[in-house]
Amino acid sequence: MISWNNFDTLKAYKKLEEMDKTFSLKDEMSKASAGDRVANYSCRMSSGLTYNYGSKAVDEKVLEALKELASEAQLVEKFEALYNGEVINTGEKRRVLHQLTRGQLGNDVIADGVNKRAFYAEQVEKIKAFANKVHAGEITNAKGEKFTTVCQIGIGGSDLGPRAMYLALENWAKVNGFFKMNAKFISNVDPDDAASVLYDMDVEHTIFILVSKSGTTLETLTNESFVKDALKNRGLDPAKHMIAVTSETSPLAKSADYLAAFFMDDFIGGRYSSTSAVGGAVLSLAFGPEINERFLAGAKAEDQNAKEKDLLKNPAMLDALIGVYERNFLGYPSTAVLPYSQALSRFPAHLQQLDMESNGKSVNRFGEVINYKTGPVIFGEPGTNGQHSFYQLLHQGTDIIPLQFIGFKETQMETDVNIQGSTSREKLSANVAAQIVAFACGKNDENPNKVFEGNRPSSIIVGDKLTPEALGALLAHFENKVMFQGFVWNINSFDQEGVQLGKVLAKKVLAGDTTGALKAYASLLNV
Amino acid sequence: MISWNNFDTLKAYKKLEEMDKTFSLKDEMSKASAGDRVANYSCRMSSGLTYNYGSKAVDEKVLEALKELASEAQLVEKFEALYNGEVINTGEKRRVLHQLTRGQLGNDVIADGVNKRAFYAEQVEKIKAFANKVHAGEITNAKGEKFTTVCQIGIGGSDLGPRAMYLALENWAKVNGFFKMNAKFISNVDPDDAASVLYDMDVEHTIFILVSKSGTTLETLTNESFVKDALKNRGLDPAKHMIAVTSETSPLAKSADYLAAFFMDDFIGGRYSSTSAVGGAVLSLAFGPEINERFLAGAKAEDQNAKEKDLLKNPAMLDALIGVYERNFLGYPSTAVLPYSQALSRFPAHLQQLDMESNGKSVNRFGEVINYKTGPVIFGEPGTNGQHSFYQLLHQGTDIIPLQFIGFKETQMETDVNIQGSTSREKLSANVAAQIVAFACGKNDENPNKVFEGNRPSSIIVGDKLTPEALGALLAHFENKVMFQGFVWNINSFDQEGVQLGKVLAKKVLAGDTTGALKAYASLLNV
Repeated sequence: MISWNNFDTLKAYKKLEEMDKTFSLKDEMSKASAGDRVANYSCRMSSGLTYNYGSKAVDEKVLEALKELASEAQLVEKFEALYNGEVINTGEKRRVLHQLTRGQLGNDVIADGVNKRAFYAEQVEKIKAFANKVHAGEITNAKGEKFTTVCQIGIGGSDLGPRAMYLALENWAKVNGFFKMNAKFISNVDPDDAASVLYDMDVEHTIFILVSKSGTTLETLTNESFVKDALKNRGLDPAKHMIAVTSETSPLAKSADYLAAFFMDDFIGGRYSSTSAVGGAVLSLAFGPEINERFLAGAKAEDQNAKEKDLLKNPAMLDALIGVYERNFLGYPSTAVLPYSQALSRFPAHLQQLDMESNGKSVNRFGEVINYKTGPVIFGEPGTNGQHSFYQLLHQGTDIIPLQFIGFKETQMETDVNIQGSTSREKLSANVAAQIVAFACGKNDENPNKVFEGNRPSSIIVGDKLTPEALGALLAHFENKVMFQGFVWNINSFDQEGVQLGKVLAKKVLAGDTTGALKAYASLLNV
Repeated sequence: MISWNNFDTLKAYKKLEEMDKTFSLKDEMSKASAGDRVANYSCRMSSGLTYNYGSKAVDEKVLEALKELASEAQLVEKFEALYNGEVINTGEKRRVLHQLTRGQLGNDVIADGVNKRAFYAEQVEKIKAFANKVHAGEITNAKGEKFTTVCQIGIGGSDLGPRAMYLALENWAKVNGFFKMNAKFISNVDPDDAASVLYDMDVEHTIFILVSKSGTTLETLTNESFVKDALKNRGLDPAKHMIAVTSETSPLAKSADYLAAFFMDDFIGGRYSSTSAVGGAVLSLAFGPEINERFLAGAKAEDQNAKEKDLLKNPAMLDALIGVYERNFLGYPSTAVLPYSQALSRFPAHLQQLDMESNGKSVNRFGEVINYKTGPVIFGEPGTNGQHSFYQLLHQGTDIIPLQFIGFKETQMETDVNIQGSTSREKLSANVAAQIVAFACGKNDENPNKVFEGNRPSSIIVGDKLTPEALGALLAHFENKVMFQGFVWNINSFDQEGVQLGKVLAKKVLAGDTTGALKAYASLLNV
């Protein structure tokens, strides 16, 4: 029997709170034997990835307490309930089935008489058939010419995840013969976004994907209208250039305005939709359906790891609980995500949504106010660029900010240059290793301006190469990490009530229905 | 006479610390009269911009104390000393002259017998002459064909600022007839960065700008080598395709490897170099020298505002001191930058470097450890995209995060669409107004999950339109804000000792000179 309890009512909470926190990461990692610690504090993931927490401020005692927390909070059991179809999204009274878009982890999930696994698999197949026809020139523009570009119109989860995934694989696909179509993205209601994307675009040979679960997202419908105008101005029929990704109940689902429609449903949150049709359509068109399937396979394999009962063999849960320890017991309010891979340039922006929108909550899953910290601020940029930017504060600032590194042993494009006795890839990897140790161990100096306090905790996910499988695994890892943290904090990680008020007030402004402060700001912005 | 004292030794510090902090932004902004407050808490900037702090958690009493702080900390006098050429960068024993790259605010600054204003102005003129020749087809590739693309190779301040400025004006230039050349950027030592930029590039018609003040930045030299290989592989002579931006004393300055060299010097920090040749070369080539000059004029005009002694008429100082109040007395550890302009997509990344690298310090300007918080974490993404991402946490998370909005009354590209009774531009502006009020005032609800606590402070910079002048003013505003905060905290905002240790350890890894933890991580990353 699962019970949902506030974090601060658990025995493990009390134990962690009262635990001696004098462990010195700096001392530990400065020992000659620290190599053993690094080797031991390692957890195998799927698809050639490893989660290493050697430089986290934890020892056996903390890990033991986190194991007790995992058990007392019934994290594996809650995950089981989730993938078996329980209504985990209590606020919106919905199941949470994004893991099912990439494989079956438990029982069949039947909702409204539909086998949901079959439903999601059917979308993958429909997209596959459609993409293959586009690539074969069987689905073309009005002149019978092949489409060369795909442009996704969506915002939030319909944009950040798919865009980050596309960018992560674009170069890999180019050098490995999988690049089929260029992908572009329009998201912002700022008309300069659509205008600038369309400015340089070969619109005549572009297929647009309109992505909105409800079919009512204002930004997305506005941008659709913008694009339709552009098509019409060129004498093109919008209905021959657009497909939709939406729910079956949305006004877009059976509209003649689209060449085809592919479906998601209410059990897939926007920020968890990269492995649904929301990501699948653009990835299948850009790189071919087999690449999308490899991406899904990577995510599925990592979901399997999240079922593991032994905390030390469950990378997502371990990452989650160390994060909780840092947030609630060490008091760190933010976390930086630092991928040493230019291909992951927008991965931090995706994680920022995933984590902050899921766990930026102040009430528990029953709507009761809680008295402990939940999700931290997430930010980040690729290394080595970040080293020449905000790392100064990370090393010598007055706050400690836990770090999540990501690195790979091989490049994607396999072109390199050897100067000063090493390749760029080696320089990149050397910098990751150096930074982790610099943050953990610091350095003393007679001049306080050159002192590094150290004791800055970090973990790293290391992979062989950023392939579709590795990307899928990476994505699933963080989705599952966020889920486990939400379970610990006893919050609903799958709704987003915090976005509503702004929408309501924006409508008032547009309707001219304003007084006081709202009227003043509307006037200031000339609306 | 200027005296440099730690913040916590000032009378104003004590006053602010002991001040009653029960002011309720929510209550104040929910009043019918809040419109007056919004109108009053406004400070005119240059180039059509206004800094509005109506939704900051300050009242007359706080502002009065901040005035006393500005006076006691001698902020205007310190700025005067800086622009008159005093050695403000104490750690590196350097003057700080980036304001001089865009105009003379005080006395002539003579260093080593050189009039520095004349020196910087000369670079602008040299770049202008060079760019005009490139645009006129007088400087061409070996075949006598015009260059069509410019590619900047640099990292940190040689990348983030110039890239953000280019992106901010790219679309404006396109629709206003100023777009001369496409610009690309290579920064990361990850070889996939250079490889992917070169993959789609018309290398034969590209002029590369190598940017490194010292001429020894490892990432940049590595990427130069990468690019030279690419040129040679195409049978092209690198020396006919490359220019350098560097200091006169660097090995690049008089090298025959470059078509031309333009100079900055040690008095321009990387993160403050957008208005020097570092930004000037790429902006002049991309948009024409007159656009660069308009950008400089905007920055200069805003620098003038920073000289103002009356705090309420000095937008950068006001912004700085309100930020200090939030950081040191209200205890907020991070700040989000939220431009409602897709053109400013990389402006938050630039501010992240500018702010965090300048003020992420734990020692004062004399190298003594300090006992108060300095620079916060800075992060952000353009609105309305952010609304569909991390705003959930900003509205309903357990921490309060001050917000910096930026908005404009007009679009850059002047193409728009009217649906549901409003244009996209109106929707964009309505959303800014709505968010500010939602954050400040919140909303009560019977269901705690739908409650918005409010009391989330924000300020907004509103402009007419994002022109070169407005962009220059915006840039200078934040540079000056960061400078004033550094003065208050009594730190050196112009060095970056925190980047050194990582470099030293990375060299050790590449030399195979590792033990313990460093050896283990090097092995993990296969280097």
